[in-house]
Amino acid sequence: MAYTPTDYLPYDFANRRHIGPSPAEMDQMFKVLGVSGLDELIDQTVPKSIRQAEPLKMGKAMSESELLYFMRKTAQKNKVMTSLIGMGYHGTVTPPAIQRNILENPAWYTAYTPYQPEISQGRLEALLNFQTMISDLTGLEIANASLLDESTACAEAMTMAQRVAKSKAKAFFVDENCHPQNIAVMKTRAAPLGIEVIVGSPDDLQADAVFGAIFQYPGTHGHVRDFTEVIAALHAAKAIAIVSADPMALCLLKEPGAMGADIAVGSTQRFGVPVGNGGPHAAYMATKDDYKRAMPGRIVGISIDSHGNRAYRLSLQTREQHIRREKATSNVCTAQALLAVMASFYAVFHGPKGLRAIAQRIHRKTARLAKGLEAAGFKVEPKDFFDTITVDVGLLQRGVLQAAVQQGINLRRVGKTKVGITLDERTRPETIESVWRAFGLLRKDDDFTPEYRLPEALIRTSDYLQHDVFHMNRAETEMMRYMRRLADRDLALDRAMIPLGSCTMKLNSAAEMMPISWPEFANLHPYAPADQANGYAELIADLSAKLCQITGYDDFSMQPNSGAQGEYAGLLTIADYHKARGEGHRNVCLIPVNAHGTNPASAQMVGWKVVAVKCDDNGSIDVEDFRAKAEKHSADLAGCMITYPSTHGVFEETVIEVCKITHEHGGQVYIDGANMNAMVGLSRPGDLGGDVSHLNLHKTFAIPHGGGGPGMGPIGVKAHLVPHLPEKSGAVSAAPFGSASILPISWAYILMMGGEGLTQATRVAILNANYIAKRLEGAYDVLYKGQNGRVAHECIIDTRPYADSAGVTVDDIAKRLIDCGFHAPTMSWPVAGTLMIEPTESETKAELDRFCDAMLAIREEIRAIEEGRMDAENNPLKNAPHTMEDLVKDWDRPYSREQGCFPPGAFRVDKYWPPVNRVDNAYGDRHLVCTCPPMSDYAEAAE
Amino acid sequence: MAYTPTDYLPYDFANRRHIGPSPAEMDQMFKVLGVSGLDELIDQTVPKSIRQAEPLKMGKAMSESELLYFMRKTAQKNKVMTSLIGMGYHGTVTPPAIQRNILENPAWYTAYTPYQPEISQGRLEALLNFQTMISDLTGLEIANASLLDESTACAEAMTMAQRVAKSKAKAFFVDENCHPQNIAVMKTRAAPLGIEVIVGSPDDLQADAVFGAIFQYPGTHGHVRDFTEVIAALHAAKAIAIVSADPMALCLLKEPGAMGADIAVGSTQRFGVPVGNGGPHAAYMATKDDYKRAMPGRIVGISIDSHGNRAYRLSLQTREQHIRREKATSNVCTAQALLAVMASFYAVFHGPKGLRAIAQRIHRKTARLAKGLEAAGFKVEPKDFFDTITVDVGLLQRGVLQAAVQQGINLRRVGKTKVGITLDERTRPETIESVWRAFGLLRKDDDFTPEYRLPEALIRTSDYLQHDVFHMNRAETEMMRYMRRLADRDLALDRAMIPLGSCTMKLNSAAEMMPISWPEFANLHPYAPADQANGYAELIADLSAKLCQITGYDDFSMQPNSGAQGEYAGLLTIADYHKARGEGHRNVCLIPVNAHGTNPASAQMVGWKVVAVKCDDNGSIDVEDFRAKAEKHSADLAGCMITYPSTHGVFEETVIEVCKITHEHGGQVYIDGANMNAMVGLSRPGDLGGDVSHLNLHKTFAIPHGGGGPGMGPIGVKAHLVPHLPEKSGAVSAAPFGSASILPISWAYILMMGGEGLTQATRVAILNANYIAKRLEGAYDVLYKGQNGRVAHECIIDTRPYADSAGVTVDDIAKRLIDCGFHAPTMSWPVAGTLMIEPTESETKAELDRFCDAMLAIREEIRAIEEGRMDAENNPLKNAPHTMEDLVKDWDRPYSREQGCFPPGAFRVDKYWPPVNRVDNAYGDRHLVCTCPPMSDYAEAAE
Repeated sequence: MAYTPTDYLPYDFANRRHIGPSPAEMDQMFKVLGVSGLDELIDQTVPKSIRQAEPLKMGKAMSESELLYFMRKTAQKNKVMTSLIGMGYHGTVTPPAIQRNILENPAWYTAYTPYQPEISQGRLEALLNFQTMISDLTGLEIANASLLDESTACAEAMTMAQRVAKSKAKAFFVDENCHPQNIAVMKTRAAPLGIEVIVGSPDDLQADAVFGAIFQYPGTHGHVRDFTEVIAALHAAKAIAIVSADPMALCLLKEPGAMGADIAVGSTQRFGVPVGNGGPHAAYMATKDDYKRAMPGRIVGISIDSHGNRAYRLSLQTREQHIRREKATSNVCTAQALLAVMASFYAVFHGPKGLRAIAQRIHRKTARLAKGLEAAGFKVEPKDFFDTITVDVGLLQRGVLQAAVQQGINLRRVGKTKVGITLDERTRPETIESVWRAFGLLRKDDDFTPEYRLPEALIRTSDYLQHDVFHMNRAETEMMRYMRRLADRDLALDRAMIPLGSCTMKLNSAAEMMPISWPEFANLHPYAPADQANGYAELIADLSAKLCQITGYDDFSMQPNSGAQGEYAGLLTIADYHKARGEGHRNVCLIPVNAHGTNPASAQMVGWKVVAVKCDDNGSIDVEDFRAKAEKHSADLAGCMITYPSTHGVFEETVIEVCKITHEHGGQVYIDGANMNAMVGLSRPGDLGGDVSHLNLHKTFAIPHGGGGPGMGPIGVKAHLVPHLPEKSGAVSAAPFGSASILPISWAYILMMGGEGLTQATRVAILNANYIAKRLEGAYDVLYKGQNGRVAHECIIDTRPYADSAGVTVDDIAKRLIDCGFHAPTMSWPVAGTLMIEPTESETKAELDRFCDAMLAIREEIRAIEEGRMDAENNPLKNAPHTMEDLVKDWDRPYSREQGCFPPGAFRVDKYWPPVNRVDNAYGDRHLVCTCPPMSDYAEAAE
Repeated sequence: MAYTPTDYLPYDFANRRHIGPSPAEMDQMFKVLGVSGLDELIDQTVPKSIRQAEPLKMGKAMSESELLYFMRKTAQKNKVMTSLIGMGYHGTVTPPAIQRNILENPAWYTAYTPYQPEISQGRLEALLNFQTMISDLTGLEIANASLLDESTACAEAMTMAQRVAKSKAKAFFVDENCHPQNIAVMKTRAAPLGIEVIVGSPDDLQADAVFGAIFQYPGTHGHVRDFTEVIAALHAAKAIAIVSADPMALCLLKEPGAMGADIAVGSTQRFGVPVGNGGPHAAYMATKDDYKRAMPGRIVGISIDSHGNRAYRLSLQTREQHIRREKATSNVCTAQALLAVMASFYAVFHGPKGLRAIAQRIHRKTARLAKGLEAAGFKVEPKDFFDTITVDVGLLQRGVLQAAVQQGINLRRVGKTKVGITLDERTRPETIESVWRAFGLLRKDDDFTPEYRLPEALIRTSDYLQHDVFHMNRAETEMMRYMRRLADRDLALDRAMIPLGSCTMKLNSAAEMMPISWPEFANLHPYAPADQANGYAELIADLSAKLCQITGYDDFSMQPNSGAQGEYAGLLTIADYHKARGEGHRNVCLIPVNAHGTNPASAQMVGWKVVAVKCDDNGSIDVEDFRAKAEKHSADLAGCMITYPSTHGVFEETVIEVCKITHEHGGQVYIDGANMNAMVGLSRPGDLGGDVSHLNLHKTFAIPHGGGGPGMGPIGVKAHLVPHLPEKSGAVSAAPFGSASILPISWAYILMMGGEGLTQATRVAILNANYIAKRLEGAYDVLYKGQNGRVAHECIIDTRPYADSAGVTVDDIAKRLIDCGFHAPTMSWPVAGTLMIEPTESETKAELDRFCDAMLAIREEIRAIEEGRMDAENNPLKNAPHTMEDLVKDWDRPYSREQGCFPPGAFRVDKYWPPVNRVDNAYGDRHLVCTCPPMSDYAEAAE
């Protein structure tokens, strides 16, 4: 028969799975926009001068099944051994119900940071559980909702100590028993801030010489000691005491609060979050109530809604994102929400009794292991330990380590003669026997005489996790339903578009997510011997190469765990470069006034002076002002930080000129990669003149937002900066490759998209944004446009006029969108009173239309107020969002239930109902409650 | 320090994960029941005479992590090769989004069969999509919502043909090109029904000698032929034509309907459902409109709800479950809902164009493979093929097969000189090259000249999958949201108790579910060489041994795919036993009147005469009637079928006597295992006198119900029956171990529970049922109780009085329970007008109380009607269930919105809303629509 070929590739991920609008839908969109196709639209939008010369070349895009086949092959190049290396990374058991219902559930992992509390009550509750758990375990009044990793948490604690200490000393003391990576990251952070770091034994600490001190508990080599006295000495000198503590140990040991510590930090990794070659995991920070306003990171708190009902929200938000430029010593704006949620559920699953039992078992196993070694004459230190011992084996070190590897076990190399061993929840009797065998001992682990090796005085006497949530019925049925109920209260990408400008909430596909659950990626220790991580090495090398091609840079560092951390690492790289050239004095950084708030904060963190550059009415950099300031600071110019396309959503042609000016004055150019989703395949920051950029892999490269983390912010640099990357100039993260275990997601995304697909994604992201801008035309003003009247991948609409005309604020519109079944766009950034809309390429025309219909209907409601047809106070906008409770109660409003609850956009059958009415932010900050309240409070609220 | 041991085992699955009530809750329940503890309750409930002598001994129960570790070790004993064996089992690509969001999502897999349409609209829509897909692909008017497997579907088609054929012939023709397992199962089914099976070439078919004929399309050896003429000949002889067709081939080939076929059957496995060593997969059946009432299995149809809105439901339900005893030739009452849903989503994902492209690619690959072999001089047959070729290699057969295995490929051994090769969606160019190498050819698969090897006349010309659902936007974002929306419309175990009597809706834990997704379990071909399935062999052997210990039997057959099929297989085993002893005339089966409806139907299927035995007022067997009938039929007594504990939820002490009587008269005892959840660890059917039992692994042994399948109904037998099991006496299922790939679930359940845990589960199941019975005491009459006033693991409450007193039916109560957030208990079975409640051990006291509160509140509503305080027609019971639409509309009811929508039990924030009001069943059967209606219809309905 005649062969009729079809052009359909059944597994065409790039065109039919990842890209939202179908070809037919795109044709309709072209008509609306008056263009013949994508080529014409892109020509109108992206200036020729900044377009890249060559298309991306990545080889053939993989189908989903090819990808999984290939990923499995790569994964199998990693050797999963039992790692007893410790150093803050431990084997743990993720309860399967948590793995399935949280980690692998799009309702949890596709959610955004809970800035809109009404649609985030589920994850806010889980995060409040996390804070309560941390506060209880550490014995400190207040905890945040997680930080990036233990090492950066230590560094954050150090700078926080400097902020709050009354001591005027300039030095900071670091316990020599801190994990090496913690010491390294603190040193990196201290240097540009002029903090002298003194590493030593707590016994030698001179309290009046420091503004603060940090101790590891238990110490990296296993020591368990009581810091009460040294903390008292610090307090006498008006200095701040920090304890970096293992939360599992705190289930058995005296808590830092009871020792008088001011701040506690640590990692909750071993609460059910796989090691993952270093991350992501949730670090924590807790402090005394006095210092809460100085604490970095997000804090979940309790407030009330407009009906007076209890509601969760992020507290003290003004501390965050909007960090005051001049004073910033932290740029933290990402947390590890998904991992914090997992850790909190681990505690809910086990409860205090279960956690205590797990900690006891770990300790007993360690005691048995030590006893066996001691019986054979090995010298085991320290005398008191929790889960870690160190054995001096002299010349046998190499032999013992190798013998262990042959048993499938990694031990820690300590100095030249010692071996460290850290046990965990997963340690089996066979594991202990294998360790003994590595020491040449043929013993059976059959001595079950329980023995404690902890000093009596350090045994914890206080209760913890007394709140009801940690005493729930622990049947899996009940747990599963609790997780489902919380998930259902939230609105995530699995139900609706999240058109958050600058956040790029695109599809996180199931195929991309699958490999991260595989043991070969999930169970590798970050400090395992390199030859056990060949799969990771291949992945990272190829991902780096592909990101280089995409950005025009020459190398990448995978260390930074967030965009802000990427900025900081990039600036450090530049600073190190200047220093190496004998120009270490360069310390002026030009930053346009509309930059991401983190930019100036990051510059502060490397000790630079920020000089603001004006923008024109279109949000573009004022080149003449830029030139003038570069000239003025020419001698001291360190560099500039710019965002491309600009935060106003415009492709500025002047970018090349700006880079040129910077270079002429000896500066280096940092191009913020937050908007990279508008560039991939079309334009490369490296070509424009950038020397460094970070990429938000959790934006452009498909890592899910996880309800507020994990993120990944690797930095790319030009060749001349390669010798100055963090790997060479100083660690910025705990783990060598940051959150390595989520890198497979970005790699999978790139492999399945291919060069063409990646470029098409960018083009369609621009199409979708322009389509929205066009459909909203007339109803709302689009603030900034390029020269042909086009926007980039996002658009800013102006809602300020309605404040005057109808008393309607941008907040009212955002909350009304919840009634329509949407997460609001980015509010009041970069311009107050506006909404920044970024649909991404993943949304279909139908979904864009649903959103536009909702926005247009809202405009009509505003008009009704403007024209006096609707009451200015009692209207659907002011009363938004509407809840099911509103519907049940007597309805005394001047509009119908139908109009209130089912505005255009809202699904009829599949309606999303927020569980609370509008949340009162001011109340929450005035009455700060950041741990689970006693149940009696709930009863009161109900009355 | 002093060691304070804790009794808490952190991973105690048996006590803290699987069992619902906590120890503290149990104490409260004991008080309510007036017992000192479980021992006393069980002593009161389960008569000593039937208690087993020894406790179960299973070794130490595994924790979740131990289980997963052990399962992975076992899985790795299976070798996953590329199987090109065909025979109806094919490599397929499960789209990852379907795997994650359906197969691995408790919202889908824990749902029950959609008998309550109001809480099942999501899966009913997915199943209607399935039917539409089948109807379209086969070109026949009506399709059912799946059958167990292709072979049993063939057998069902055969008996259906006999029911509807006007020909009076007694023989049935089977195409010799049918898959061998299809032929085997049809032969098994035909024998007891007196049907002569003629196997031969369609060319030799004598139409007037048969009542029907079945053809395989494509044939098992690859033949693709047009059956139009032979079908016409059959029709001329008033016989029925059946085509067993591969749906993938139908995407390219002329459909059975166009050839005139009356019935089409087949397997949808290759539509995205992993091979899984034979199952579970969804088989299908389609037929002409004329024959729809004779079609077995469930049929989803469209009806309206009480407000006239369109609603899905199961149509023609009277055909099912309530099969008329005398005429039954089918006992089908399970489908493969979860797999049918997956297959339907596969079609939604790819659409007609995509499916056609996939089929084309498979065909082109096969044509290339054949061309390569032909070029080297190999004789390839047939001339026309789709995906399967057969090569005559003479004496080289063994060598080629072995060489292929060395390449990692399984080919099919055909006769003594031939090799069969079937390609599929997963076949890679390297695979084809490896096959060539096995034939000694060093070729590259670089000839991409497309070539068709199908006869022009057999190319499909008609369209299919024209409905909008198959033309949705195929972006993953959209698909993910569609799957979520459908899931959200349904109420499954992940949100609430499903207290269905006789259905045992217990926890299906995440740890149990995980291994079934592993490639080592999912991707094995059922006819792969045995040495590649050592992991499965270990699993099945150990599972069988443990089930033997639990039941007191000596061996198990894993073939039956459902409880009803287990009954049938068990009776066949008995029949074969009688025959082997020269007593083949024994054909009378005693069955109590309150038996499961499938029991008499199964007896009919093996050609037995059913003699009904009376029950006393307590639902127990009338022993004297039993004795009298056994004596009367002594010469012909084949056996009896009894259920234990009885379907009335009572442990009868007379069971031993009943068994004894049966044996005395030469009969064998079949004990239905449906209620095994009341027995495990306490009592063994084998000890009571049973010779055969089936176990519903999807009830007692934790396989999820999947919204109406998969199920597993393995049978256990005493030693004397072992030689007569299906493996020896005739296949009852397509695959050697039935739905092998879900057996890991039951195994995991048993391993994690251990003997003590299993027994505790039974005890708590009995506790939970008695607690409900006690709490409802006074409000409702519990119909049947044991001698101490206790019920077994379920209780039947009488709602008949309220029909008279208040006009309230059992249906009204069931629908009102939806408002309270519950799936109704089993309705009107075994006694009309009652509710049978089985809570299982997995539910917490809190959930039991929520249910009891709801039931008590409903009783008060009935009382209000009885006392005239509430209108007899316009009341919350008659108007139930209430929808969100009711709440939005004007409310003109004599009770409040609050009372209507938030009765006791209903969650406040997490309220479940049914998407439709009460569904009109009669309307749906009168206006039968069983495929997706055109969108214009929806528009009409909206108006």
